[in-house]
Amino acid sequence: MAQVTLNVEGMSCNHCVNAVQTAVKNAGGSAKVDLASKTVEVEFDEGKATLKAIKDAIEDQGYDVV
Amino acid sequence: MAQVTLNVEGMSCNHCVNAVQTAVKNAGGSAKVDLASKTVEVEFDEGKATLKAIKDAIEDQGYDVV
Repeated sequence: MAQVTLNVEGMSCNHCVNAVQTAVKNAGGSAKVDLASKTVEVEFDEGKATLKAIKDAIEDQGYDVV
Repeated sequence: MAQVTLNVEGMSCNHCVNAVQTAVKNAGGSAKVDLASKTVEVEFDEGKATLKAIKDAIEDQGYDVV
């Protein structure tokens, strides 16, 4: 399993937390979102998902991975 | 039709806009949300809905009608 912490701009409320978690899940990973620090800890199996696909899924929801 | 503009705290993003609009709709009215001014313009038929029910529906979503 790979673990990466992303800095993500634009998350403002629990709806955003859910949107990001669902996006990461759909991309094959799992996410822990911390609104206060604007970070998303993602965990994924490198044989089943890619970091790029996870980042893209977050950005598709309207957030910026910086 | 009655029209009332409410001041609502806690709405931060488009997910919040959708949550408030859906809540008001389910309470029998319609809503236009302006995030920047933190206002919700509600319109409802006084024969079918009450302002109290609409305010309660918004607060049930976690926002404060002030």
